[in-house]
Amino acid sequence: MDRTTLGSVIGSAPRFCGISTFMRLPHSRALDGVDVAIVGVPFDSDGAFRVGSRFGPEAIRSQGKLCLRNHHIHHGIAPLDHLEVVDFGDAAVIPGSIELTYESVERELAPLFEQGVVPIALGGDHAISLPLLRAAARRHGSVGLLHFDAHLDTGDTYYERIRYTHGTQFRRAVEEGLVDPSRSIQVGMNGTIYPEMARQASESLGYAVVTRDEAAAMGSSSLAAAIVRRLGRGPVYLSLDIDVMDVSVAPGSGAPEIGGFLTREMLEVLRRLDGVSLIGFDVVEVNPHHDAGQMTAILAANFVFEFLALLAKRKRGAVTG
Amino acid sequence: MDRTTLGSVIGSAPRFCGISTFMRLPHSRALDGVDVAIVGVPFDSDGAFRVGSRFGPEAIRSQGKLCLRNHHIHHGIAPLDHLEVVDFGDAAVIPGSIELTYESVERELAPLFEQGVVPIALGGDHAISLPLLRAAARRHGSVGLLHFDAHLDTGDTYYERIRYTHGTQFRRAVEEGLVDPSRSIQVGMNGTIYPEMARQASESLGYAVVTRDEAAAMGSSSLAAAIVRRLGRGPVYLSLDIDVMDVSVAPGSGAPEIGGFLTREMLEVLRRLDGVSLIGFDVVEVNPHHDAGQMTAILAANFVFEFLALLAKRKRGAVTG
Amino acid sequence: MDRTTLGSVIGSAPRFCGISTFMRLPHSRALDGVDVAIVGVPFDSDGAFRVGSRFGPEAIRSQGKLCLRNHHIHHGIAPLDHLEVVDFGDAAVIPGSIELTYESVERELAPLFEQGVVPIALGGDHAISLPLLRAAARRHGSVGLLHFDAHLDTGDTYYERIRYTHGTQFRRAVEEGLVDPSRSIQVGMNGTIYPEMARQASESLGYAVVTRDEAAAMGSSSLAAAIVRRLGRGPVYLSLDIDVMDVSVAPGSGAPEIGGFLTREMLEVLRRLDGVSLIGFDVVEVNPHHDAGQMTAILAANFVFEFLALLAKRKRGAVTG
Amino acid sequence: MDRTTLGSVIGSAPRFCGISTFMRLPHSRALDGVDVAIVGVPFDSDGAFRVGSRFGPEAIRSQGKLCLRNHHIHHGIAPLDHLEVVDFGDAAVIPGSIELTYESVERELAPLFEQGVVPIALGGDHAISLPLLRAAARRHGSVGLLHFDAHLDTGDTYYERIRYTHGTQFRRAVEEGLVDPSRSIQVGMNGTIYPEMARQASESLGYAVVTRDEAAAMGSSSLAAAIVRRLGRGPVYLSLDIDVMDVSVAPGSGAPEIGGFLTREMLEVLRRLDGVSLIGFDVVEVNPHHDAGQMTAILAANFVFEFLALLAKRKRGAVTG
Amino acid sequence: MDRTTLGSVIGSAPRFCGISTFMRLPHSRALDGVDVAIVGVPFDSDGAFRVGSRFGPEAIRSQGKLCLRNHHIHHGIAPLDHLEVVDFGDAAVIPGSIELTYESVERELAPLFEQGVVPIALGGDHAISLPLLRAAARRHGSVGLLHFDAHLDTGDTYYERIRYTHGTQFRRAVEEGLVDPSRSIQVGMNGTIYPEMARQASESLGYAVVTRDEAAAMGSSSLAAAIVRRLGRGPVYLSLDIDVMDVSVAPGSGAPEIGGFLTREMLEVLRRLDGVSLIGFDVVEVNPHHDAGQMTAILAANFVFEFLALLAKRKRGAVTG
Amino acid sequence: MDRTTLGSVIGSAPRFCGISTFMRLPHSRALDGVDVAIVGVPFDSDGAFRVGSRFGPEAIRSQGKLCLRNHHIHHGIAPLDHLEVVDFGDAAVIPGSIELTYESVERELAPLFEQGVVPIALGGDHAISLPLLRAAARRHGSVGLLHFDAHLDTGDTYYERIRYTHGTQFRRAVEEGLVDPSRSIQVGMNGTIYPEMARQASESLGYAVVTRDEAAAMGSSSLAAAIVRRLGRGPVYLSLDIDVMDVSVAPGSGAPEIGGFLTREMLEVLRRLDGVSLIGFDVVEVNPHHDAGQMTAILAANFVFEFLALLAKRKRGAVTG
Repeated sequence: MDRTTLGSVIGSAPRFCGISTFMRLPHSRALDGVDVAIVGVPFDSDGAFRVGSRFGPEAIRSQGKLCLRNHHIHHGIAPLDHLEVVDFGDAAVIPGSIELTYESVERELAPLFEQGVVPIALGGDHAISLPLLRAAARRHGSVGLLHFDAHLDTGDTYYERIRYTHGTQFRRAVEEGLVDPSRSIQVGMNGTIYPEMARQASESLGYAVVTRDEAAAMGSSSLAAAIVRRLGRGPVYLSLDIDVMDVSVAPGSGAPEIGGFLTREMLEVLRRLDGVSLIGFDVVEVNPHHDAGQMTAILAANFVFEFLALLAKRKRGAVTG
Repeated sequence: MDRTTLGSVIGSAPRFCGISTFMRLPHSRALDGVDVAIVGVPFDSDGAFRVGSRFGPEAIRSQGKLCLRNHHIHHGIAPLDHLEVVDFGDAAVIPGSIELTYESVERELAPLFEQGVVPIALGGDHAISLPLLRAAARRHGSVGLLHFDAHLDTGDTYYERIRYTHGTQFRRAVEEGLVDPSRSIQVGMNGTIYPEMARQASESLGYAVVTRDEAAAMGSSSLAAAIVRRLGRGPVYLSLDIDVMDVSVAPGSGAPEIGGFLTREMLEVLRRLDGVSLIGFDVVEVNPHHDAGQMTAILAANFVFEFLALLAKRKRGAVTG
Repeated sequence: MDRTTLGSVIGSAPRFCGISTFMRLPHSRALDGVDVAIVGVPFDSDGAFRVGSRFGPEAIRSQGKLCLRNHHIHHGIAPLDHLEVVDFGDAAVIPGSIELTYESVERELAPLFEQGVVPIALGGDHAISLPLLRAAARRHGSVGLLHFDAHLDTGDTYYERIRYTHGTQFRRAVEEGLVDPSRSIQVGMNGTIYPEMARQASESLGYAVVTRDEAAAMGSSSLAAAIVRRLGRGPVYLSLDIDVMDVSVAPGSGAPEIGGFLTREMLEVLRRLDGVSLIGFDVVEVNPHHDAGQMTAILAANFVFEFLALLAKRKRGAVTG
Repeated sequence: MDRTTLGSVIGSAPRFCGISTFMRLPHSRALDGVDVAIVGVPFDSDGAFRVGSRFGPEAIRSQGKLCLRNHHIHHGIAPLDHLEVVDFGDAAVIPGSIELTYESVERELAPLFEQGVVPIALGGDHAISLPLLRAAARRHGSVGLLHFDAHLDTGDTYYERIRYTHGTQFRRAVEEGLVDPSRSIQVGMNGTIYPEMARQASESLGYAVVTRDEAAAMGSSSLAAAIVRRLGRGPVYLSLDIDVMDVSVAPGSGAPEIGGFLTREMLEVLRRLDGVSLIGFDVVEVNPHHDAGQMTAILAANFVFEFLALLAKRKRGAVTG
Repeated sequence: MDRTTLGSVIGSAPRFCGISTFMRLPHSRALDGVDVAIVGVPFDSDGAFRVGSRFGPEAIRSQGKLCLRNHHIHHGIAPLDHLEVVDFGDAAVIPGSIELTYESVERELAPLFEQGVVPIALGGDHAISLPLLRAAARRHGSVGLLHFDAHLDTGDTYYERIRYTHGTQFRRAVEEGLVDPSRSIQVGMNGTIYPEMARQASESLGYAVVTRDEAAAMGSSSLAAAIVRRLGRGPVYLSLDIDVMDVSVAPGSGAPEIGGFLTREMLEVLRRLDGVSLIGFDVVEVNPHHDAGQMTAILAANFVFEFLALLAKRKRGAVTG
Repeated sequence: MDRTTLGSVIGSAPRFCGISTFMRLPHSRALDGVDVAIVGVPFDSDGAFRVGSRFGPEAIRSQGKLCLRNHHIHHGIAPLDHLEVVDFGDAAVIPGSIELTYESVERELAPLFEQGVVPIALGGDHAISLPLLRAAARRHGSVGLLHFDAHLDTGDTYYERIRYTHGTQFRRAVEEGLVDPSRSIQVGMNGTIYPEMARQASESLGYAVVTRDEAAAMGSSSLAAAIVRRLGRGPVYLSLDIDVMDVSVAPGSGAPEIGGFLTREMLEVLRRLDGVSLIGFDVVEVNPHHDAGQMTAILAANFVFEFLALLAKRKRGAVTG
């Protein structure tokens, strides 16, 4: 793919210049030869508190231009030198209808998994993980889940009747056989909770749970090791709810909590995941209406860059290994 | 009702002091002897552009404290001297489910109409007018509609499948017999539109339509006269989408347009409606996420005060007349 | 005074460059040869709703740099070519003590009036007009008052006990003989009021009152003529509460109202005052915490420039006349 | 008390729905059977820098809805299952008069202490601690004080004349015999200070002082142990000025400092206080005008939830112990 | 061109969904068959006061999605039914070098004029008009200029040495023969000015000047007639500096003035220009850093839609005429 | 110098009162007897991403009033008791011309170094360090550089042609002999980079480089020791780009990165530098347009206070030593 045709003028123009695709990548729906696709899923209709993550993809793309400097110091790799990456645009969502949105997202995203393209989805609220996992399952069957979040999202229903929400998707995922809980782990449980959202709900489904307090006590290195051990060698989907971070680090989220991860703590974990077979990602609940100085969008954009570096490192390893 | 028991300490404490009910009115669900109830309906799940009007009621209540000075200069009346007004709180809404929300809102609001209480609903997006009209129809049957809006909201479906939205409610209202279009008028059509939302859609349903351009050409006095004439003597529901105002006057709305009403233009119309038999109101689409200096919330709060003054004047007239 | 020594580098550096004095004027307390002094009075302790006008002078000064282009198109005059103007800095205020603040402001401002320097005071809340009038009275005795405001500020007490507030100062001013109500006029009464703040309160003190509705009906030209007639030939103090402007034009005020003056309406009045013998000014209640895009501070800064143009025109007239 | 009558619809409606009482608790002034009362004290007239904490209670209540999920992970307790909690509304304050405000706050709050209700006061600025301590002393006599703050607030006068301020209240409290300094400790001294506010001022009054630097060196566990030791077994009042937190964690405060506590550091201290006999709390100086993404209000609301958990744990212990 | 391939999913997805091109138009640099190209020119290096219009194109594109409803009520036309429009992306700019930027912009834009594509440029500051006029002149020679602005921008140098700035471009344009001043008119002169920027500077170059005061006195209809008369039948370039609008309507500009145009006043002028032979446009000085509720970006986006409607009407007329 | 003549009324008025000089210091260009001069350099024309640091000096001065409490707890010193400090105002900058700005800044700043005054420069973007180093070199020759930054700023050209930028100044400084790289160290390299900006670029020039990762691994104490060792005994210039701090701590910067220094980490380094012979400082890239709750400006202002404390301690040592 010719990076210079559309949107991409890296080097000869400043980073703020050009259509706001992520890292000013070419916007394309053609998947031939593509390794990774950034895709927005701006659905936020079922938010139980703050709403507005429909503008999350726009905000992350806008700040993603900051990552145009394509070199990752820690890993010593330039992701775009190893990976073909496109900005796929957004999956169509239907405000007010989670069922229709789920159909649409699964339909649009399934071809990516089927053609071996790794999607990095930008939410939208956390409900969007379910259609992504459905799409993933078409190719990979039941996958391991690495879930960073202040909340477990393994509730059963909301308002006694609603089954599909941003707080129940990882129960549904097990019920539907999309996730193998024995290769899955939920990290960061924190803050106030509803009793029915408690740890037992997840553990009885088979998930491993590491609370925020436990994570802090373990330290980054041990935590990363435990995660890697749990995930094993099979395909893994990584879902990161930005509210796993402390509210002072990521104020622009849907249901922020205090006492969450600081940035370096999370980086130290993420950077140890290069051995994991990651086949899909989402970063969700980024809400620019409540952001401050764009810090949350910048953080999310950099997490995407971290994911790209992991994928690039793995691909380079495969090529040279 | 004893105004001093809960929340109301008018006179002895500054306006910013106290729980944020509208005008620091008592928060109560008891309806005996009540003339007017302020009620929030914080539903915004189907927003087609900006979202966040779920925080509209909170914002309007917060700024509504500015209206504690209970005297209306133009009408020469102190509304709370003539009316028993309560803050009813919010109707329960179910984010992500317009159908369940419609059930809930109608169920909670119907008793008001049935007991002769005039609700002034604070949106939420414009979809909420439909359950309010359903509740009104239980008592009043088919009512006249006075609809201020930059958009006609008489579309048929969204995304080819969704029938209940903030852009179709006034088609549904006619179809369901809640509104008598021959006693109804839509004022303020403005800005860009979808072809299928055009004037003919409304007119073929029987509504009268006055575009923003036509309104500007008529002037406030003629416009008010035309409205009053159209509405006739029967019961009338007034629905005001804040986007009927120019974006510079009401930036905090869901789908703002340029060139809309300025404030005095609208006041000059509203203040001529004291002869109309108003049985319900809503002010919708106030979105604090996009507001500037709270100007939109302040405007909406003052519109509520204008409504109270109209009702008070009419009641005083009925008492003394 | 050498304009180049401190702060003033007009012409050779961009307007944003330099210490934020008003129009980048020299900051000085020396009054010899000075015609006009800009002085901040950042007192806001008794605000009954929004608070924060203590940062009003800083905000107006910051935006006042926009007025560095020293030429007034309408009047055809460059104020600083005719007037020696300094930025006097702020009068010391004592947060939480209106009495001590009144002492301080009067003591610091009296020398200005005594030496014939016209102060243009930047509030702070409206309570600051009283010590300014006290200082003015030392030189001029009882003065005419031109008062633009959505509220009359002729209440008697707040919370049944507090006599000195931003809502009672113009009653006190009459009681203390600082203002001659027969040469005074209050323009812009608007919005909700407390009954005891009504028009009669002012009229019984002897003030003329023009409500906002009346002003709109009169038009700018007639209004200006009525004002000039009322003020007569004696010394006049002009006090402008920014909330006389519509909230969409001046959101950053302490107690905003809807339906107030638009900017050109006010300019058309102010620009007809060049025959009035203005001996002091204040612009009050500018609150940057609630401003939007700095529009209120920009408006206030330009009103100061309008005042300078009036003074310059009068001085030029006196010189050449 | 029937939690469902007013305002409280936990479970059947989303958290953003309903009048903004803290945690959507019932708003009531009846104290029978009540364990804890949330009460706003929106006084901010004597602020020496930023002002606007009068809107602190509204902001904390608004974000307090986030804590509706009534389960505390760390302590393993659901506070509202053990405690009867109401939102008492605000104590009446008189802007501009600290003396009248002190009278009013003491008069309104004294019944709480007298009836064994623990108040959790939401400031307002830090001056409000004095009338709370006066009210506490009526029941408890001289109490221990646990004071988290970047500043010691044991100055003598402001502007050489003002004795009652947000910087002198803990000197007054000792002078008036409200606080027993030998059972009191001030934690977090940080940032720039006036010489007369230095550590010696507090120590000569008998307070123990732990600076921010010392706290950092000790670590949370040792610090908590030292605090608990100092406080002893008698009744303790906890006062938390939000500026004890780093400005990046709590930007919305009256006089922020750099280098203060991070959130987990503070949580680790607070969570070790369940053995302390806490009879009253305040969280002060939350100023939404300077907040960013509501992070400060969210932090303060969660601190209130932490306090509730401590009280619940202690009550459960008393019941079962 | 197939509107569905890239970015454009009008109708089946909500407007907020998708990469932020203007009106979600296809992003393309291919010009075959294209009538109009939206192009960003995010240069702002020489701003003399506020800076940040480099983010103007992003902001206008983001709000331009609001205009997806492709029907213009006033003109009764759906612009995209008559015109092939693309989003060309941004011309490369070189921050800090106006000369290199001028070269780049002229080089990138010249092919548009040469192939008969009408560019609608989104600034960036007003300096960008010069390279656009240079590019236009390659095809059209000397053109008529319709210039809406609070400032005349016909200064000679800045800081005594700088010839190319956002305040001198329309002097340079005459000197370089790009503009025929006898067919040109500058509308909206307002606010404070430097003496050397006065009306005479423009008039001596041959421009017609209508000040804001004169425009207000003329009324929209007469003003439009005078403009059309002056422009004649030849090719005309329309340059609109958003600061021609009142600061309350367009706070997000580089050098806002009070008393400028209100929105309907400007619309009434623009909508009468359908007989003018418009060959290029710019909307400049939109600065999102100072915007409020996005109102300025929304206004600018709608002005672009007005331009499209004018072009569509003219093309339809040419086809059917 | 008489501290009471202009602007400085420390003690008798609240900190928010008075013209916004840094710490309300006297604004003066006279250098006799002066030890330190605060000077703004509001140049930001070449910013490659966010722009607006021209308002950095105004923001830092405004928040610098918070530091009026002239006592540094950690060092136990009151800087203004030992140092004569003035606010020098701003050096004139020429937007859009880095060359002319460099001339101006060097010309205005050279006298300070020549007369032994230590400048503390407030940026503006990082390009301003070069003219400061040129001015320093006139007196001190080649100096040591202590450079805190997420980026190395030792690139060669931007856009293939531009040699003077905020990303190349420390290459130029070595080339011009202004900096002795063998006594220089760059600390904090972090985030994404351009390959040509990598560590080798700096190291081949002779700089020592400590990345953010390395710094975190070393700990503050070891890092400080390594820095002091590297700098040696000669004169040292300290340049601090605020983006060395984590974006959550300093969101208001030009090119923020995640994972940077937290505040206490940086304080622990800075406070160990009192043995270094510091002859000049800058704090750059503070951009209030992207700040949140003013936290970045507050941080920068406090860093200036830290510098003052270092200088005071050294002077006191010299006097008493």
